[in-house]
Amino acid sequence: MPSLRDAARGRILFGGDYNPEQWPEEVWEDDVRLMKDAGVNSVTLGVFSWAKIEPRPGAREFGWLDRLMDLMHTHGIGVVLATPTASPPPWMGAEHPETLPRGEDGSVVWYGSRQQFCASSPVYRRHAAALTEDLAARYADHPALTVWHINNEYCTHCWCDGTAAHFRRWLRDRYATVEALNEAWGTAFWSQRYDTWEQILPPRKAQYMKNPTQVLDFKRFTSDALMECYLAERDIVARHTPQIPVTTNFMPLWSGQDAWAWSAQEDIVSVDVYPDPKAPQAAQYNAMLADMTRSQAAGPWMLMEQAAGPVNWRGVNHPKPAGLNRLWSLQSVARGADAVCYFQWRQSRQGAEKFHSGMVTHAGENGRTFREVKQLGAELATIGEAVSGADVPSEVAILHDWDSWWAGAQEGRPSRLLDYTEIVQSWHRALWESGISTEFARPEADLSRFRMVAVPQLYLLTDAAIDNLVAYVRGGGTLVCGFFSGIADADDRIRPGGMDVRMRDLCGIRTLHEWWPLDADTTVECDGFRASVWSEELEADPGAEVVSAYRGGELDGLPAVVRNDRAYYVSTLPEPDALRSLLGRVAAEAGAVPVLAGLPEGVEAVRRGDLLFLLHHGRGSVTVPVPGAQVDLLTGAAVNGSVDLGRYGVAVLRGATL
Amino acid sequence: MPSLRDAARGRILFGGDYNPEQWPEEVWEDDVRLMKDAGVNSVTLGVFSWAKIEPRPGAREFGWLDRLMDLMHTHGIGVVLATPTASPPPWMGAEHPETLPRGEDGSVVWYGSRQQFCASSPVYRRHAAALTEDLAARYADHPALTVWHINNEYCTHCWCDGTAAHFRRWLRDRYATVEALNEAWGTAFWSQRYDTWEQILPPRKAQYMKNPTQVLDFKRFTSDALMECYLAERDIVARHTPQIPVTTNFMPLWSGQDAWAWSAQEDIVSVDVYPDPKAPQAAQYNAMLADMTRSQAAGPWMLMEQAAGPVNWRGVNHPKPAGLNRLWSLQSVARGADAVCYFQWRQSRQGAEKFHSGMVTHAGENGRTFREVKQLGAELATIGEAVSGADVPSEVAILHDWDSWWAGAQEGRPSRLLDYTEIVQSWHRALWESGISTEFARPEADLSRFRMVAVPQLYLLTDAAIDNLVAYVRGGGTLVCGFFSGIADADDRIRPGGMDVRMRDLCGIRTLHEWWPLDADTTVECDGFRASVWSEELEADPGAEVVSAYRGGELDGLPAVVRNDRAYYVSTLPEPDALRSLLGRVAAEAGAVPVLAGLPEGVEAVRRGDLLFLLHHGRGSVTVPVPGAQVDLLTGAAVNGSVDLGRYGVAVLRGATL
Amino acid sequence: MPSLRDAARGRILFGGDYNPEQWPEEVWEDDVRLMKDAGVNSVTLGVFSWAKIEPRPGAREFGWLDRLMDLMHTHGIGVVLATPTASPPPWMGAEHPETLPRGEDGSVVWYGSRQQFCASSPVYRRHAAALTEDLAARYADHPALTVWHINNEYCTHCWCDGTAAHFRRWLRDRYATVEALNEAWGTAFWSQRYDTWEQILPPRKAQYMKNPTQVLDFKRFTSDALMECYLAERDIVARHTPQIPVTTNFMPLWSGQDAWAWSAQEDIVSVDVYPDPKAPQAAQYNAMLADMTRSQAAGPWMLMEQAAGPVNWRGVNHPKPAGLNRLWSLQSVARGADAVCYFQWRQSRQGAEKFHSGMVTHAGENGRTFREVKQLGAELATIGEAVSGADVPSEVAILHDWDSWWAGAQEGRPSRLLDYTEIVQSWHRALWESGISTEFARPEADLSRFRMVAVPQLYLLTDAAIDNLVAYVRGGGTLVCGFFSGIADADDRIRPGGMDVRMRDLCGIRTLHEWWPLDADTTVECDGFRASVWSEELEADPGAEVVSAYRGGELDGLPAVVRNDRAYYVSTLPEPDALRSLLGRVAAEAGAVPVLAGLPEGVEAVRRGDLLFLLHHGRGSVTVPVPGAQVDLLTGAAVNGSVDLGRYGVAVLRGATL
Repeated sequence: MPSLRDAARGRILFGGDYNPEQWPEEVWEDDVRLMKDAGVNSVTLGVFSWAKIEPRPGAREFGWLDRLMDLMHTHGIGVVLATPTASPPPWMGAEHPETLPRGEDGSVVWYGSRQQFCASSPVYRRHAAALTEDLAARYADHPALTVWHINNEYCTHCWCDGTAAHFRRWLRDRYATVEALNEAWGTAFWSQRYDTWEQILPPRKAQYMKNPTQVLDFKRFTSDALMECYLAERDIVARHTPQIPVTTNFMPLWSGQDAWAWSAQEDIVSVDVYPDPKAPQAAQYNAMLADMTRSQAAGPWMLMEQAAGPVNWRGVNHPKPAGLNRLWSLQSVARGADAVCYFQWRQSRQGAEKFHSGMVTHAGENGRTFREVKQLGAELATIGEAVSGADVPSEVAILHDWDSWWAGAQEGRPSRLLDYTEIVQSWHRALWESGISTEFARPEADLSRFRMVAVPQLYLLTDAAIDNLVAYVRGGGTLVCGFFSGIADADDRIRPGGMDVRMRDLCGIRTLHEWWPLDADTTVECDGFRASVWSEELEADPGAEVVSAYRGGELDGLPAVVRNDRAYYVSTLPEPDALRSLLGRVAAEAGAVPVLAGLPEGVEAVRRGDLLFLLHHGRGSVTVPVPGAQVDLLTGAAVNGSVDLGRYGVAVLRGATL
Repeated sequence: MPSLRDAARGRILFGGDYNPEQWPEEVWEDDVRLMKDAGVNSVTLGVFSWAKIEPRPGAREFGWLDRLMDLMHTHGIGVVLATPTASPPPWMGAEHPETLPRGEDGSVVWYGSRQQFCASSPVYRRHAAALTEDLAARYADHPALTVWHINNEYCTHCWCDGTAAHFRRWLRDRYATVEALNEAWGTAFWSQRYDTWEQILPPRKAQYMKNPTQVLDFKRFTSDALMECYLAERDIVARHTPQIPVTTNFMPLWSGQDAWAWSAQEDIVSVDVYPDPKAPQAAQYNAMLADMTRSQAAGPWMLMEQAAGPVNWRGVNHPKPAGLNRLWSLQSVARGADAVCYFQWRQSRQGAEKFHSGMVTHAGENGRTFREVKQLGAELATIGEAVSGADVPSEVAILHDWDSWWAGAQEGRPSRLLDYTEIVQSWHRALWESGISTEFARPEADLSRFRMVAVPQLYLLTDAAIDNLVAYVRGGGTLVCGFFSGIADADDRIRPGGMDVRMRDLCGIRTLHEWWPLDADTTVECDGFRASVWSEELEADPGAEVVSAYRGGELDGLPAVVRNDRAYYVSTLPEPDALRSLLGRVAAEAGAVPVLAGLPEGVEAVRRGDLLFLLHHGRGSVTVPVPGAQVDLLTGAAVNGSVDLGRYGVAVLRGATL
Repeated sequence: MPSLRDAARGRILFGGDYNPEQWPEEVWEDDVRLMKDAGVNSVTLGVFSWAKIEPRPGAREFGWLDRLMDLMHTHGIGVVLATPTASPPPWMGAEHPETLPRGEDGSVVWYGSRQQFCASSPVYRRHAAALTEDLAARYADHPALTVWHINNEYCTHCWCDGTAAHFRRWLRDRYATVEALNEAWGTAFWSQRYDTWEQILPPRKAQYMKNPTQVLDFKRFTSDALMECYLAERDIVARHTPQIPVTTNFMPLWSGQDAWAWSAQEDIVSVDVYPDPKAPQAAQYNAMLADMTRSQAAGPWMLMEQAAGPVNWRGVNHPKPAGLNRLWSLQSVARGADAVCYFQWRQSRQGAEKFHSGMVTHAGENGRTFREVKQLGAELATIGEAVSGADVPSEVAILHDWDSWWAGAQEGRPSRLLDYTEIVQSWHRALWESGISTEFARPEADLSRFRMVAVPQLYLLTDAAIDNLVAYVRGGGTLVCGFFSGIADADDRIRPGGMDVRMRDLCGIRTLHEWWPLDADTTVECDGFRASVWSEELEADPGAEVVSAYRGGELDGLPAVVRNDRAYYVSTLPEPDALRSLLGRVAAEAGAVPVLAGLPEGVEAVRRGDLLFLLHHGRGSVTVPVPGAQVDLLTGAAVNGSVDLGRYGVAVLRGATL
């Protein structure tokens, strides 16, 4: 199987989306000059080129792309070649309106933006396949080709009649009989029983709350329907070029694609990461997405898109202060990225994203942004050979699951303030601030190699997942399970007792009386800390230890944190310091230690292979004590006992070979 | 005429919605065991059973229901049998899309939730009638049948073409000629004149503000159209079982149904009451809805649905703290309920309401909730004979009217911050906190038996209502009228002078110059208090007394509260203490006194028949002085001079017979 | 060319929209009595009379209007006669559904409100033209006719198929070839390239951000399409009555119409002005709209609509405190209005605007509002001859442009908090508070007569505009240019360097590195002031002067305000005091001085012709020093050295002729 290693070849890929069709060809030569100047060794071509290649149905205009492929090859720049199927040309919607998506309310989603295709449309799929076939055939042997990039950020949902028919086929595959579907969906409630397959629809606009399992299955279906589009194109290119790795770029921690399922179908896992430079937890967010993507890739991964400066889709789009682009890029490398790429090479002058920064901004080569890009390119070239392909070791797993997210994020739940991704981020933050390296895993994965497993909040757990957790703890593992977990089965059916009995037994909970979600901006007091979002009225097993109890209010004296041997249950969301302290202590008990002890505030340490990355997220200067004699690969300087890091400073240390 | 008395037979009905079709039949036996354990004597069957009974058009599957009816009868549990017409099966929408409602913007409201029927659809009505006919015929003589429950929470609005045709028929009945309609709607404004009936539509999506009388009439029509559906089913069941009382359950203080008109067509008035356990005024809200429903019933009423614990449709759904379910249930009984029922018996495992509590929650019979339900069932059995059928005396009426609400809640008014139900609740609260028993009445009702009549805010008053109020005061009654009342006539036409001259004369107002609505979070100062929401630039009649004047601002020195003999006018919304003080003082002048003087903070006293209910809404302990020798029916204990009430404590006292 | 002068004939027109079709004819006589009482000399008839005149297709009911025209003439009241085409009767939508607009999501905008016509509909246009023809023919020679008022507040947008066809014709005229359109719209981005004209649509509901130039062109088109409707009717009436001036009433500072283009097609520029009486900057807002309308009119203008009291479309609709209607009316006159008119004469009793005040409110002739209207009418009669037709001199221009507004207000920009109209208002406020008289001008206008030109924020500047500014400064003018100006060309294409190089050279900016928009409720510190909304990472030219630099944060030490000779660049929004101080200082350097020095707080001075208006916006009393001997035309009193003004007081001074 081809992999990122084949494209990286001992380097870190550096470059970005390149949309030369937006510029006159005379600009291309200038692009190449600046790319060489910046150390760019990889560009992504073709993402939005459908209308350029196929200006009318059946046409093929490849000449410009031939010239570009050759130009890149001439200058030693590899090409990540995209199937341009994310954005069909206007003629598609105009001639085949049934390819246009429809919203829950039946209204048409028109062309004039991007991604306006119904994944269930045979017409769309036929055109996309034909174009992919021709593209793959034409460039299969081109020496510039390094990676296939299928489509782009698959995300479009559709509720049209064609989707309905496709959804029914998907449901038939899942349930075989209408009776089984009725049972799974609980259609006895509210008189929703279906008598025939033909009656079943996507969850469209309704009078009141929708059937939650129908909504859950529709999310599963939509992820699968989009993946069918991906697989169809992947299979075409793989047939032409079995040696070239294939990817599609994810939006990370995004609800529309089950990235566990998708990544299993990719040779390279790639992702688009856009932290808000002003967000207080942006550095940890960047780390979390790196950890998550590395876990999906089971090794090095590709940062397909980030922004060299501001994006344009937030309410207020903040630029990256000097040094931040470099810092976060190196943080991604520390956490497993073997490719650091951007959307996009040259900032657009026209169109909806002309205020999204590029590696070359409107300010051009004299702009601060490009100067920093150049520095980064040189540094990545310096460390590339040492870092490329290396692993990031971790002894703690955080469980994360799309089914659970989908089922738990619906209307009619105990609290709309319960935000799954915020809980996941809170738990990752606690471990990140503790300096403990983490991976993400799906609940059914083999967990035996981890010293500790954290379940921030998994509302839905399959039987297999529950059995997996029980076996993990029986096998000597340490589990910390957050609130509102193990509630529902795979069909979003509440388990007897309100929480699965195996999970209750595991965690030492006799009875779960009530969930007591908290109002916004309110907290509950527990022994030793305050907490927010959620609380629970629990009765612990007599043999369990109450680690912390609620104080005051209706839950006064009832258990907040329960421990049953090596299984902990946390029935609320402790404030950040308390959660960090709790998880840090449990991890220590489990033998999972920080990467490097004694770090100053704001400094992150990451081991990758035999390298130690030190990343300083603060704006002052710090001195970081480091063990033994080391060399900083970025500067070549010898390090003995400590290293000084300035604002946004980074060191990449390797033990000095004596 | 049959009545609630026929179903209650000297007991308080206790039970709830029972949806056994969601469970395998082996659970039914367990249900019966727990019902007996909890003292359940009434269950509601069939509310969402259409698809179970008629899985395809014309089918009839009654076997399961036969077994259930027999099972209930065997165990002495009466059945409130619902026509399952609130939620048509999917086949209805799939085969007859014209039965699906359409929104103001023309988009379809699909099946997959509940209540997706257009009340104007002949197809829906035909199917609903056929099913009702067969259901009534089959169970007419069944000994378990105690009450007919028609449909459920009628609420669906529709703007489809079929509705348009029906609306036109309704308008023809109301206006006879297009000219009369044009006159009533004021279509001379904005060139809206209709030339033919066929041009008239429901108020659909428009460029700017809609015609307010069209909107008002459409609300009237929708209430009537839904009532036609009710009446059609009621007439069918009444033909089969003239001896069985009929009800349909209201959502209380809800804008969609004119409950005065509807309750006149019911043998039993029933209602679904869901106070938020965290809302500061929840206890008073529960009292208000009880008073309102008792007034609509003109006697005992049926609490058809409440929640034993949390609901699932708020942003944050709080459970009921220990004791609160009992307290509010007994409060409802004190205020006239002869039935205390829940949605639902057993909490669902699937579907959109699986996080809505049941009498038996996910925690099962060992859960706190069920334990409290059992206690309550036993207590209701204890007091049932003494309380059932008794009256709740009251000398104060609060006027409340749907037409006025509908007309006043539209766009383009002086202030969007004026919320009719908040004003009504504020006034009821003032009287409730004063310990004064209140009823609600429609503005045209006979008011002669009341010592005081309060008009919180009735924007629209018919001529009959105005004449009624004038006659009431002339007849010796005391009137307190809130601001922005008597402004419009039955067609939402502003009365000359901006407020009806009879109302002005009655209240001592010479000229109403301007309304001065207040911004959010601002107040205005008056002699003796502060006020919010609204103020007015008034000129009082020379003979009137200015009880309080505005101080400061543009209205400095102008009258805020005016008195003309026994008629008061309150041109603003005094802060709660001030309104309580004002209404309490006027009530005292009128001879309306509190139920019991000298109550500690948080204790409510209600007389029902010869019983005195004491209800403690606080969490500490209090001692309540009570006159003479009494017996607490709940405990059998003798009471002399005072009774101690703990957290959420209740006593039901009857004078000791010496 | 006819003009406002022909209608005003040495008076100030005083009156308002008169909708007698809402009232029985017996009220008309009372109307005339009160009009005479109030000094009304002009009424607007027919605005919403289409259904009255043409109750069914082709009918003509002119009798009632004949009687009204005669009635007005009999009493010496001139008539501003409206073509009633703003609100087609229901029969139009019912018989010709294609005349109804459709929203971006395809949903129909129904009749039942007003302005429900698609400007591109031939059917609508045909009916509107036929009615206009007959109306013009019938009243061409009527002696009461003074002004033609075409339609009303043109505003309706439409995305229907008919509009699409019209939009394509408009685009063909603009671009001639699809290739040119593709180039202008930048359709190479996101694969949006159009292959044929037929594929092009209005910017309908889409998956993500829309093409910004398509959106810009659609705004241009919609303004033009509406203007075509205007021109068609104007041409008809002008053919019948070449001597009667024509107008259509604008909503001021409103995005839907390019008022520069429209006003060039009017004989009279008229506008509807509705400041919120509670808004802190309401007086300045009123002044700004007066200045803007006067600039569009290039002289005296017509205040077609204002409210005597509250409007009804805000969340909370505040009345005008005593005296405020008079104050703002006279302020409008001071700033060029030769007509002071209201919506509407008599407050409606029915319909959507019955809570919008009238000159005669619900309180009638004894209401405070009408009493104040009468006083104002008398005063306007007193000063009419002296003021009518006179100019308001100004030496400072503020540039304002619809193209720039349209382009800059789209999604996907650096900051959604950047509100164009707020920036314009901030700059006008700074000059208004400095007492400096201002005009507005379009960026391509001849600026040579101004001492200073202010560019609050013009994102898009055409080449002509840029050349104009450069020439203006070279010719000796002083320019102050706000941030985010000169960014895009006429196609919304970002100019090289991110800001046009001519503008950068003019203002002394070498490199624009990044925009740093500020979060809500945050400020940035600069030398001498704080600022909000925006900041920039700039590199100044060596020869330029840094007037103020940023302090603290990422921009510490970088230029905030740059000066290059007579051109200033302000890269942020200084707090109001600082902006006033800055612009006042620059104006002084440029030789533009306040109207009157030494004014007390809250007093505005305006020169019109040989009159000096003093307007006091405070509620206390002040003494205003004035030069020399004057006469107050309002009172006839002699003024020597100073004049005392009470709450909302006004003086209209003319130098005493000795």
